[in-house]
Amino acid sequence: ITAFVEKSQNVLVTAWEMGTSDPRKIIFSAKMGLALTVISILIFFKLPGSELSNHYLWAILTIVVVFEFSIGATFSKGCNRGLGTLSAGGLALVMADLSDKTGGWAELFNAVSIFVVAFFATYAKLYPTMKPYEYGFRVFLLTYCYVTVSGYRTGEFMETAVSRFLMIALGGSVGLIVNTCIYPIWAGDDLHNLVAKNFVNVATSLEGCVNGYLDCIAYDRVPSRILVYEAVTDDPVYSGYRSAVQSTSQEDTLMGFATWEPPHGPYRSFRYPWAMYVKVGGALRHCAFMVMALHGCILSEIQAEEEKRKVFRNELQRVGVEGAKVLRYIGEKLKKMERLNPIEDILHEIHQAAEELQSKMDKKSYLLVNAKNWEIGNQSRDLTDENEISNLDEDLSRILAHKSQSEATLRPPTNWDTGIGKNTNLAPIHSYQARTVIQKQPSWPSRVSLAPGSMLPPPPEAIMYESASALSLATFVSLLIEFVARLENLVNAYDELSEKANFKEHVAE
Amino acid sequence: ITAFVEKSQNVLVTAWEMGTSDPRKIIFSAKMGLALTVISILIFFKLPGSELSNHYLWAILTIVVVFEFSIGATFSKGCNRGLGTLSAGGLALVMADLSDKTGGWAELFNAVSIFVVAFFATYAKLYPTMKPYEYGFRVFLLTYCYVTVSGYRTGEFMETAVSRFLMIALGGSVGLIVNTCIYPIWAGDDLHNLVAKNFVNVATSLEGCVNGYLDCIAYDRVPSRILVYEAVTDDPVYSGYRSAVQSTSQEDTLMGFATWEPPHGPYRSFRYPWAMYVKVGGALRHCAFMVMALHGCILSEIQAEEEKRKVFRNELQRVGVEGAKVLRYIGEKLKKMERLNPIEDILHEIHQAAEELQSKMDKKSYLLVNAKNWEIGNQSRDLTDENEISNLDEDLSRILAHKSQSEATLRPPTNWDTGIGKNTNLAPIHSYQARTVIQKQPSWPSRVSLAPGSMLPPPPEAIMYESASALSLATFVSLLIEFVARLENLVNAYDELSEKANFKEHVAE
Repeated sequence: ITAFVEKSQNVLVTAWEMGTSDPRKIIFSAKMGLALTVISILIFFKLPGSELSNHYLWAILTIVVVFEFSIGATFSKGCNRGLGTLSAGGLALVMADLSDKTGGWAELFNAVSIFVVAFFATYAKLYPTMKPYEYGFRVFLLTYCYVTVSGYRTGEFMETAVSRFLMIALGGSVGLIVNTCIYPIWAGDDLHNLVAKNFVNVATSLEGCVNGYLDCIAYDRVPSRILVYEAVTDDPVYSGYRSAVQSTSQEDTLMGFATWEPPHGPYRSFRYPWAMYVKVGGALRHCAFMVMALHGCILSEIQAEEEKRKVFRNELQRVGVEGAKVLRYIGEKLKKMERLNPIEDILHEIHQAAEELQSKMDKKSYLLVNAKNWEIGNQSRDLTDENEISNLDEDLSRILAHKSQSEATLRPPTNWDTGIGKNTNLAPIHSYQARTVIQKQPSWPSRVSLAPGSMLPPPPEAIMYESASALSLATFVSLLIEFVARLENLVNAYDELSEKANFKEHVAE
Repeated sequence: ITAFVEKSQNVLVTAWEMGTSDPRKIIFSAKMGLALTVISILIFFKLPGSELSNHYLWAILTIVVVFEFSIGATFSKGCNRGLGTLSAGGLALVMADLSDKTGGWAELFNAVSIFVVAFFATYAKLYPTMKPYEYGFRVFLLTYCYVTVSGYRTGEFMETAVSRFLMIALGGSVGLIVNTCIYPIWAGDDLHNLVAKNFVNVATSLEGCVNGYLDCIAYDRVPSRILVYEAVTDDPVYSGYRSAVQSTSQEDTLMGFATWEPPHGPYRSFRYPWAMYVKVGGALRHCAFMVMALHGCILSEIQAEEEKRKVFRNELQRVGVEGAKVLRYIGEKLKKMERLNPIEDILHEIHQAAEELQSKMDKKSYLLVNAKNWEIGNQSRDLTDENEISNLDEDLSRILAHKSQSEATLRPPTNWDTGIGKNTNLAPIHSYQARTVIQKQPSWPSRVSLAPGSMLPPPPEAIMYESASALSLATFVSLLIEFVARLENLVNAYDELSEKANFKEHVAE
């Protein structure tokens, strides 16, 4: 019993939080209550006695069905309902005329007509482009059957169809008036906010990835929810890009509703380009996929050494910071519905940062391959580079020192192919000691098993993986630069949106 | 008018194709027609006169609403409807008792009770975990209002509630019987097939990526639909992984329905682990993200030179082929519901292939950085490698020859940062001539503009990008190896599924 009490307490707390975090839900519930109360009162007082009111049910039904959270959805459903009712009513009347002429075969005629109409309406409903009108077909079918059956029973086809339609119109208009006149909730607003929020999410993710990579954060064990791409609430890096990737269908739905909404609030033009919002969201997604790939480098078990990452620390960080800044900036502009500054190039900074990163990578590219094999070459080459000479020398000697040290402690790379498997713990990269253990894994044929304290020289495979580990840094850098490249596409999409949606001119701060 | 005729012809053709490609849709439409005809005939002949039949509308309504494509959806909706009706009916009867006691205030009491009930039911509907029961709440609301209003008007609360419920039960059972007894369509089947199909899709995508990369296929201009992540029908590589990535919500929906379905066909156990299908789908998605990143390397404008790709041709191709083979194999096993062979390791081949690729990459890692800078080092190092000596020498001299040639023709890398922009054409990589043109792009500050015929030595930036281009090959290789690593996770997920779902033992062929 205490468990039950606790559970219901939890539910109440969650319900309360839901209300405080999004008061629109409370308002919407109250509106729903109001609309139903209004229609009941109408039925209680005004209509009793009139023959119309035998069909009062339809008014209630219409409100319950049509009253949706956003105005766009309400309009779309209301329109579907209206059209479905009208056309089915018309068809039923025509059919009733025909069935009259069949004389004694009316029942058979009606049954067959119901079958044929139901068949075609259902088939049309499954037609791919008819998805938004699915509800309309349902109503069509219902109306047709109802009018036919009740008309047959009472002989009053016309009256049934007309009074039913009037009651639906009554219910629909009460619903629409209550829903639109009292604190309307717009799907367009939601779409606008969703896309803007995703900019912030991806920016957070990007920063998290770059910083996590530089701080050599490694998952002790990759959460299995990430491995099967389920939602994880306590990992902002993962959930940031995931929310952007996952919102495709939500964006599409909201767009479908938003196009039904009349011009309102800041969306003043008549044919507001909601589709462009989805496009900007898609371009953002295209960037988010790169962030996802960056995160993959952190998840991966081939990991570059901390030392090597440090060499690129400043450059990587700068690109990360600038990238997040650009994303946040565009997201904010979108929120405020302002155009980008046509004079200043917002990509200037990040392009410079990317270029710096690239030039650094070029100069130190010996770090990206198995440097051991290139020692002589490095030196002889680097000495010819006059600008960097002292710097490089320092680097090199540090790396060589590090290398000899790491050879002494025999540090083969982590067993990268199994970390994603079930029972492996990816040792945190900080502790070199832990990484000297290679577990024997039957799945990888040439896996080498070394006792932690063993002092044998590393077998060739181990050297090989070491080189793979260095290349993983190159991968991270490449992906980051590709991310920067994709930003341009995003900026273009945003420019197109701001043009078509006639955003405010950029305001100098 | 001809346009209209043409259009309707098109629609008819598509509708016909829809029917022939998925005959279940035709069958479903016929079943819907049949169910409605049956219920109309029942109303025509059996029930007239009886007081029950005043509520025949509810039987029709129930069929129209409950008759869903898959059995699971039908059960879930039917159950929602039944529960909603019952509980709302009960509540309405209790409230009617109370309202009787209020005497003259009955109208007010009823109106207030409708408001309060509508408020709480709507609010509960918005509660996150209540999503699958959304329809039940709607029915609850409708029933409560209807019973209260009609009871107030006629004074027959009990009768309304009971006869309405009976008619709903009648409609529901006709719908259920017709839908389940005649050619049932199972959501579980759909889920099974969807996941199996995605394996094939990702395999196709992977092969396409690797082959495309080796054949140096480059997009003349990246289709803008890819850049905003919209569906593209004529690009199997893209649509392959996209379908796997996009099917998240579809899988979730189907799983929601499948759990409602009784054991049937090959899914014999009572609590069939449908959730594991979604997990396997998620693990597949985790692999598909890597394929997506591989495709990103093709879309990217930093491209490795054809020569360099050729060096790794055999190894890359082998990994691609083996990877696709593993995916197809698991997909087929899933389709046949068989376990994997517990003795043979299906990842053996691909691990070997990946290892070979890695060892090749290690041996030739000088190709992955700006080789020009390492010429001396390369040679001195490679000569110490006794096995590969002749081979490498050949390679090196070829590369050096290639390099000097390319320097003579002055081939700076493509302007990688703009290809994703609006008006850039990524020249196909085959034609070196085309790539010698660098367009001046204002957005990249240090962009260098070179006339096609100019014979100046390439500026430092150009050399830098050349090194970036070589690193892009390293990126491709790393991503491919990470893909292989993720396969293990997929195999584990599949093993878990085959265990829980009690698949057939592996059958030796």
